Amino acid sequence: MTQSKKIAILGASGYTGAELVRLISSHPFMDIVALGADRKAGMEMSEVFPHLRHIDLPKLIKTEEINFDNIDLCFCALPHVTSQNIISKLPKKLKIIDLSADFRLQDTNEYLKWYGCEHQASKLQLEAVYGLTEFYRDSIKSARLVAGTGCNAAAGQYALRPLIKANLVNLDDIIIDLKTGVSGAGRSLKEGLLHSELSEGSHPYAIGGTHRHLAEFDQEFSNLAGRPVKIQFTPTLLPVNRGIIANVYVKGDPEAIYAEFKKAYSKEHFMKLLPYGETPSTRHVRGSNYCHIGVTADRISDRAMVIVTLDNLTKGSSGQALQNANLMLDLPEEMGLEMAPLFP
Amino acid sequence: MTQSKKIAILGASGYTGAELVRLISSHPFMDIVALGADRKAGMEMSEVFPHLRHIDLPKLIKTEEINFDNIDLCFCALPHVTSQNIISKLPKKLKIIDLSADFRLQDTNEYLKWYGCEHQASKLQLEAVYGLTEFYRDSIKSARLVAGTGCNAAAGQYALRPLIKANLVNLDDIIIDLKTGVSGAGRSLKEGLLHSELSEGSHPYAIGGTHRHLAEFDQEFSNLAGRPVKIQFTPTLLPVNRGIIANVYVKGDPEAIYAEFKKAYSKEHFMKLLPYGETPSTRHVRGSNYCHIGVTADRISDRAMVIVTLDNLTKGSSGQALQNANLMLDLPEEMGLEMAPLFP
Amino acid sequence: MTQSKKIAILGASGYTGAELVRLISSHPFMDIVALGADRKAGMEMSEVFPHLRHIDLPKLIKTEEINFDNIDLCFCALPHVTSQNIISKLPKKLKIIDLSADFRLQDTNEYLKWYGCEHQASKLQLEAVYGLTEFYRDSIKSARLVAGTGCNAAAGQYALRPLIKANLVNLDDIIIDLKTGVSGAGRSLKEGLLHSELSEGSHPYAIGGTHRHLAEFDQEFSNLAGRPVKIQFTPTLLPVNRGIIANVYVKGDPEAIYAEFKKAYSKEHFMKLLPYGETPSTRHVRGSNYCHIGVTADRISDRAMVIVTLDNLTKGSSGQALQNANLMLDLPEEMGLEMAPLFP
Amino acid sequence: MTQSKKIAILGASGYTGAELVRLISSHPFMDIVALGADRKAGMEMSEVFPHLRHIDLPKLIKTEEINFDNIDLCFCALPHVTSQNIISKLPKKLKIIDLSADFRLQDTNEYLKWYGCEHQASKLQLEAVYGLTEFYRDSIKSARLVAGTGCNAAAGQYALRPLIKANLVNLDDIIIDLKTGVSGAGRSLKEGLLHSELSEGSHPYAIGGTHRHLAEFDQEFSNLAGRPVKIQFTPTLLPVNRGIIANVYVKGDPEAIYAEFKKAYSKEHFMKLLPYGETPSTRHVRGSNYCHIGVTADRISDRAMVIVTLDNLTKGSSGQALQNANLMLDLPEEMGLEMAPLFP
Repeated sequence: MTQSKKIAILGASGYTGAELVRLISSHPFMDIVALGADRKAGMEMSEVFPHLRHIDLPKLIKTEEINFDNIDLCFCALPHVTSQNIISKLPKKLKIIDLSADFRLQDTNEYLKWYGCEHQASKLQLEAVYGLTEFYRDSIKSARLVAGTGCNAAAGQYALRPLIKANLVNLDDIIIDLKTGVSGAGRSLKEGLLHSELSEGSHPYAIGGTHRHLAEFDQEFSNLAGRPVKIQFTPTLLPVNRGIIANVYVKGDPEAIYAEFKKAYSKEHFMKLLPYGETPSTRHVRGSNYCHIGVTADRISDRAMVIVTLDNLTKGSSGQALQNANLMLDLPEEMGLEMAPLFP
Repeated sequence: MTQSKKIAILGASGYTGAELVRLISSHPFMDIVALGADRKAGMEMSEVFPHLRHIDLPKLIKTEEINFDNIDLCFCALPHVTSQNIISKLPKKLKIIDLSADFRLQDTNEYLKWYGCEHQASKLQLEAVYGLTEFYRDSIKSARLVAGTGCNAAAGQYALRPLIKANLVNLDDIIIDLKTGVSGAGRSLKEGLLHSELSEGSHPYAIGGTHRHLAEFDQEFSNLAGRPVKIQFTPTLLPVNRGIIANVYVKGDPEAIYAEFKKAYSKEHFMKLLPYGETPSTRHVRGSNYCHIGVTADRISDRAMVIVTLDNLTKGSSGQALQNANLMLDLPEEMGLEMAPLFP
Repeated sequence: MTQSKKIAILGASGYTGAELVRLISSHPFMDIVALGADRKAGMEMSEVFPHLRHIDLPKLIKTEEINFDNIDLCFCALPHVTSQNIISKLPKKLKIIDLSADFRLQDTNEYLKWYGCEHQASKLQLEAVYGLTEFYRDSIKSARLVAGTGCNAAAGQYALRPLIKANLVNLDDIIIDLKTGVSGAGRSLKEGLLHSELSEGSHPYAIGGTHRHLAEFDQEFSNLAGRPVKIQFTPTLLPVNRGIIANVYVKGDPEAIYAEFKKAYSKEHFMKLLPYGETPSTRHVRGSNYCHIGVTADRISDRAMVIVTLDNLTKGSSGQALQNANLMLDLPEEMGLEMAPLFP
Repeated sequence: MTQSKKIAILGASGYTGAELVRLISSHPFMDIVALGADRKAGMEMSEVFPHLRHIDLPKLIKTEEINFDNIDLCFCALPHVTSQNIISKLPKKLKIIDLSADFRLQDTNEYLKWYGCEHQASKLQLEAVYGLTEFYRDSIKSARLVAGTGCNAAAGQYALRPLIKANLVNLDDIIIDLKTGVSGAGRSLKEGLLHSELSEGSHPYAIGGTHRHLAEFDQEFSNLAGRPVKIQFTPTLLPVNRGIIANVYVKGDPEAIYAEFKKAYSKEHFMKLLPYGETPSTRHVRGSNYCHIGVTADRISDRAMVIVTLDNLTKGSSGQALQNANLMLDLPEEMGLEMAPLFP
């Protein structure tokens, strides 16, 4: 019989940390043995997140208080910059999944450009594997350090990787118009995240090609295409807590595109291709690790729209991380991740 | 090894039907073998509820097309009146959990009074067991027909049964001011349930002691007290999909009340008593089968407020039903029901 | 002193009808003398729309009961098809503003194509003026019958008309990705409009170039360009009641585009051009007749995004109608329309 | 012809400040000549509140920079404590309406008890008039300093003052169960006010008789009754931005209560008594200065529920303030306040 794996979570007082706890609480072979949260050290998790009140969990402690000797895998759900500093000090053989942006970019110059600060752990970057499970599965299995992707970056790549790889779309004319829920911005105290500011309305942000997830798109799409690829990407904030939905506008043959997705995703447990022409909805993946994809032709010939939806905290972040953890720990990839979405 | 139980769900195209499917999809020992939905017969469940797209499910069919021979238990998630008519025609030995109001009231005169029509299956009523699990556990275990409680009725009873039984509160001065999410009203086409009508606002409804769940309160509280008990009960509609939270105003000693809850619920898996004076929130039980209870003293002596929250579709309805089904099928009571709430 | 104009509203039981009443109640020179609503005839407006309870209004009556002799202007807020049939029977000299789709398309073949039925009043179509105030002001002033625009069509045209006219963008590569609130769908009983179905999520609809407002875009943009123009247009439903915001992707010089908007809108009372690079938000126009426009360059050269936001019920529909009514009745164009948006 | 009054607003960067600007922008005889906001001094109002972009307004400046010589009336929309300190330094003849809690309590010991700090301007307190317009109209007319009421305190008093005065209800058994929108908490950065924390759920707060508006209830109801009156009061947070609705449970004759309201409010412009037994809704007063009141009998004899709803930012705060300002400046009381609510 499989023995339970011992899990630590750093950054447990944020939304992705809490989502990891939620998911792992249903995982049959993982035990949470340490929860790190520097500012809230000393508190019970049930004080910080009362919805987890029914789960028997260790108290929040400071990272330095954690004994990593017996830990099989550590999730790091900290802000970028903090993350690289802390991971630098963790045992060199510890399996780690970092949910921050710190190890997503192979080229640390790109990190400097998009995140505005020098990378402090460029040596660790060399061993980091990009965590988009369906496309880096084998490398993740044998990785020690996996970098979780941006939630928007995951959505966009699910729509575009197969098409770019198969050379089915015009690489110079790709637009991702993406809508995202509020929880993607985390639990930080910003005026713009107050309920009174956000509810009952919507607005784009990070317009004009300034959103940091573009760094991931640039890296991955250029690698795939074998030449520089720059796309347009605009996110819009929705007055909902969870969910990303992206309209991806491409120039190419819609039916060939659909056929390619069929090929790419028919054996992928969490990727659900809708019947041709159907429309996905954020509410049909909410709280789950599933990703729904639709393809539709436009009335203008040779143009298609790919619509992708996923839950930013689950498939876009903590669910992806758990899926990767299963691979790294030699457990079934989908273990603990098959709960149905919550609707209504 | 336990063999999977074969399950049928009638009324699968409504919200409580879909919630049953969501829950059972994570249950290790139940298989859904038939889904009934008369108006939507012939459709796939994924067309009616795309969030269940990833689950392998039978097609929706008419009730009369279902072969009940091998079915171990049938959930009936139909509207009242329809429910009693259909259940009357089901095999007499079939285990049934009815989620409608049809078999909640022992006295069919009360049914007539509150629901405005004669009960057509008063003989069946005689064998029906009231489905509030924590208080009817033994009867439910051996029952053939269990009547799921009203969702508001469940919330109110969790707050009051222990207090009435222990004679801790003034029976003539009980007020339940309850707030409920929209999904409790079902998927029916009513102007008042449109998004534009409901979002961004709130209002009480069924005011003045006219809400039908009062019939359950009257029956249960009077039985407990051994004399007629009539409470005041006003529900208010919240612009959220799931969740009930009730402020229950009682006259009695707050600390004695708290002690009584400790006694009543400390061994109950799904009942979570908060530290004295703390406030529960609908969002901390959302999508789960847990019920959070808080007790606080008022500044006026000998007055207390009990606050109860649960998810109307889960603990208030389909989760309760599954909990009862586990009992009736001799499975562990909490099986398939321990997922954590979805927050944020 | 100006004498008050006598106003009739047909279709007063719908959202655009109610919005007309809301606006006109603050108009110093208009009196509502008749409210038509066939299905709700006999009811008080305060029963149908309790938020108008404080206003002294005539009872709802059937259209045929209205005496149009003394009416100066009639707003027709009925569904399409119904609208043309009723307007055909109204006095031939009555000034009319129709808010439906019935008189927006000059070519009745286009009407047949997009709305799926023969136009029954093609003679009236000949005298109809398209109601996009800022661009048809002079014709509206002298018109008898004005056709209110589609709410999405208004938003898209505010973003594109000046650019197409000035030949500043590639006409074959225009994408409007638009997000819209729920009230645009009216008060009709559809499962998809229920609160439980819509809140807490988002999804595109009418994908692939099938939304009927494309007929207006085709007509207007082709007229402006002097050659056929077909754009891509995808609407997404937001879980908010009011507000449209459109990301309009164009190929052209962002600074030239901004300069053109400055020229086009600097004297327009209700059109507010934001500082270059700033982002508008639906919540900043909510409930008002103002339209906010932003322009931003993309990181890719020669690409720009125009962002337009307006309230679909006000500037996109009933506010536009009142603005046109002011013109037709020789009143100051902005009269009764200058209230500030409601935020938060 | 009336000359426009010159108005200053201190605390213009908060929600009640912005609401004052929104309302005054439609007032025919008021001009905003100074906007104070210490932390945001130097900014344009359109940067702080883009929904006011279309209004020509003075720049935000520090209080000390304002020349009060020509100002007819100053609204003070600052936090409590700050407010009393600033008002102490304002010219002694300046007409002032304070929207904070600082001058609501006649007994500064009560201020100390409820607000936890010594009152620094007890001399000013002597001349302060409590600003519940309908009940202090004459005093307000001749007042120099008016204290705006708490928004919840206003709602509760509209339900109870006539009944307490007429001795129609049991004074020892009054419960106010009130639901309130989020904007009442202001624009401050608190984790509990984030969208992800508040939307899609609800919870009571300040339970057990600890909410500060109880101080106002105690003061006013005891004064009215001529003996100490203590009520129970529990607020619940709604996931909406605006709106308060209170269920007020009283023991008394419902019909006598209704008759009393008729007497009390039939000549009050902003108080709308609903037909007996009807239910008000927050969405029917949203954004307006109207207050809707309903009365219903319970099934238990001699018990009634009064339901009151108003918009916390308008009738509960800035609208009340403007109504009082009209009185103090000898303008028609309802001027600039008659706009209809925004629905949907």
